[in-house]
Amino acid sequence: MESQTILIKDTIIIGDEINKGSILVEDDKIAEINRNLDSNDADTVIHGEGKVLIPGLINTHTHLSMTLMRGLADDLLLDTWLNDHIWPTEANLKGEHCYVGAKLACAEMIKSGTTTCNDMYFFMDQVAKSLDESGMRGNISHGMLDMGDEEKRKAEFKESLRIIDKCHNTADGRIKVSLGPHAPYTCSTELLKWVRKEATQRGVRIHIHVSETEFEVKNIIETYEGRPFEYLNRIGFLDDDVLAAHAIWLSESEMEIIKDKGVKLSHNPTSNMKLASGISPVSKMLDKGINLSLGTDGAASNNNLDMLEEMKIASLLQKMNNFDPTVLKADDVFKMATLGGATALGWEHEIGSIKVGKKADLALINMKAPHLTPYRHPISHLVYSANGGDVDTVICNGKLLMQERELLTMNEKELLEDAEETTKDLLSRS
Amino acid sequence: MESQTILIKDTIIIGDEINKGSILVEDDKIAEINRNLDSNDADTVIHGEGKVLIPGLINTHTHLSMTLMRGLADDLLLDTWLNDHIWPTEANLKGEHCYVGAKLACAEMIKSGTTTCNDMYFFMDQVAKSLDESGMRGNISHGMLDMGDEEKRKAEFKESLRIIDKCHNTADGRIKVSLGPHAPYTCSTELLKWVRKEATQRGVRIHIHVSETEFEVKNIIETYEGRPFEYLNRIGFLDDDVLAAHAIWLSESEMEIIKDKGVKLSHNPTSNMKLASGISPVSKMLDKGINLSLGTDGAASNNNLDMLEEMKIASLLQKMNNFDPTVLKADDVFKMATLGGATALGWEHEIGSIKVGKKADLALINMKAPHLTPYRHPISHLVYSANGGDVDTVICNGKLLMQERELLTMNEKELLEDAEETTKDLLSRS
Repeated sequence: MESQTILIKDTIIIGDEINKGSILVEDDKIAEINRNLDSNDADTVIHGEGKVLIPGLINTHTHLSMTLMRGLADDLLLDTWLNDHIWPTEANLKGEHCYVGAKLACAEMIKSGTTTCNDMYFFMDQVAKSLDESGMRGNISHGMLDMGDEEKRKAEFKESLRIIDKCHNTADGRIKVSLGPHAPYTCSTELLKWVRKEATQRGVRIHIHVSETEFEVKNIIETYEGRPFEYLNRIGFLDDDVLAAHAIWLSESEMEIIKDKGVKLSHNPTSNMKLASGISPVSKMLDKGINLSLGTDGAASNNNLDMLEEMKIASLLQKMNNFDPTVLKADDVFKMATLGGATALGWEHEIGSIKVGKKADLALINMKAPHLTPYRHPISHLVYSANGGDVDTVICNGKLLMQERELLTMNEKELLEDAEETTKDLLSRS
Repeated sequence: MESQTILIKDTIIIGDEINKGSILVEDDKIAEINRNLDSNDADTVIHGEGKVLIPGLINTHTHLSMTLMRGLADDLLLDTWLNDHIWPTEANLKGEHCYVGAKLACAEMIKSGTTTCNDMYFFMDQVAKSLDESGMRGNISHGMLDMGDEEKRKAEFKESLRIIDKCHNTADGRIKVSLGPHAPYTCSTELLKWVRKEATQRGVRIHIHVSETEFEVKNIIETYEGRPFEYLNRIGFLDDDVLAAHAIWLSESEMEIIKDKGVKLSHNPTSNMKLASGISPVSKMLDKGINLSLGTDGAASNNNLDMLEEMKIASLLQKMNNFDPTVLKADDVFKMATLGGATALGWEHEIGSIKVGKKADLALINMKAPHLTPYRHPISHLVYSANGGDVDTVICNGKLLMQERELLTMNEKELLEDAEETTKDLLSRS
């Protein structure tokens, strides 16, 4: 097959430095930056005047198919939310629901500039199909929980291995699979030890929730005589291939463990605020050199997947929590949402920044709007003033997924109708 | 002049209840709701399928012309921000800067569904001109501060009265003028007493900043032997025509004073978080029956004027601060941004809700988007999932200001260019 090329011409490129220039995408990679690039050489030319080009955003903790439960239950205590709404609905989930929910999530992510996500949920081969068809990049994991039940545990092992065998390194390498033990309070030590062993043997990563609520920390302390990261460390679970989501309730010694072991974290401020879970000491951990990334969590507790909004809320929350407006600056949180996310997923050599030779995962943001005027530091505008609706064009793995806000890999109108019908079907089963 | 009519057909109307229906706008008012309205009777027909119709949002504390300083200085201590960036820039402001800055703000507000604002700044006749031309509704006040200097005080009196005489009740009643003493720590007791007297005599309202920072509260306690609202009450300043912005650092007894006197508050969560000023006890005050409204503050400390985003951040912040996800529910914060805002400005009989006989200040939001699918409680989607970019059509005082995202009262492209040039001119003077 002949190589396909896209030229993004005369834009502002947010690379290691911020420069005006053009970029040539060849096949799946960034081939040239800022040279005298001739429009005639490219199959497709995108005019970038008045726009800024950023690395595609990376959402490192979400549950894509939960888009179908967006707004299903708000303003409730976590227990009520889970027991009366989320879990009963999830009990009726079929593969088709997860496929359509994930597809809806892909549409939403592309339209708000996200090109890579890290998902944990159920029917993950259906989620992989959505990601593949949408053209996005994703790390997926089957959410495992055994609550100490051996039969359930075996079933979780089987499903996790099925998803790895079926989906890992598929879609031209756009889809990878991790192991996804839900959390230390829902998974037995046996399950966690099996995950650690299999992850190492198979060279796959681990995605887990840790210390989202104060309640679960107390629970772990009572059960295992140690705080969650102390317990996970003691059983040999932690390594630099582990991504822990939330990580709110942390002691100083746990932060030291996280740093020593090279554990990656996904910060989820909107969900944490909406469920009143707590505030992760993010700016403190950044100072310690811990790898922080950013995630929206599922749409049922956010209630969107907009990483531009997530960046703003992350920065505001840290400033407020530290009573210091100088912490988690725009540049810091932008890095969390790009290269920090790539690092968290072990993908930092391929994505997360705009460099020749890296994968062409890019989002072009239209800055010609009243709320982004006057033009100034583009990263400040992206973090503090922009929203997902400002994203104009998105490229993932060298392929155009959206141009001038039109989705190119799916029919948006049909998808929205399908999502409404699929939601009705899901809710009719309860 | 013959009456002009607009029919918004087959939409979802967020009134006292949420119903499907149509609305007929005649001249400046809502003439009929939900009757068998015939398209042939209206001069303009707007199709509302897949959209929801809300009262135009009301931003009760902002500094419109500061859009020119958007992103000028982020992630700084309040002192540095004010002394090194904002005040030196403001020292060079001319009327033309304030006119263009306010015009840019109007464009941004209309595009994000706001029809009414409450502004305090300088060159307010220029701001009034922008509001008039844009078709918006606004309460404006000249920001007065004397720092105890008698000559400065007299000049402030003169300018305030000039603005009242020139602008109050102009633009078919769309523009009103308040008196705007900046804050208790920047205004002398003499100034505040004069403001109280003039406001009562002239029947204009008062707009003031109170207790934004802990520092200023300490300052007031040292100077006046009482906390800010205690001091203001003692000098007879407080009444139900006073709107206090921020109101973060409040004692129990101050909350009682606010309630007893019927003082209105404007909550500004994004600015308060970005500058790490503190957290207003909003949900507690709502429980006490205090009138709360919502404002974005100026674009230099937010950095946008998006009231949909402000609603989400307000709700998240209260949930987090109270460690209770059930507080400041979507409905509560939506009311703050609509009828609460109208009440805060003494405009509750004319705007803030969709009722026959009220002014036609309306925003139509497009719900056919991935991040607003599946369709569910529309107020939840507006608060937690939507952003300003979802606003489709805006009407103020019965006049279309935006249709399908095209501004009708101004040339957006020319305005953005003008704003860039005007900003360059402003910054070149320092």
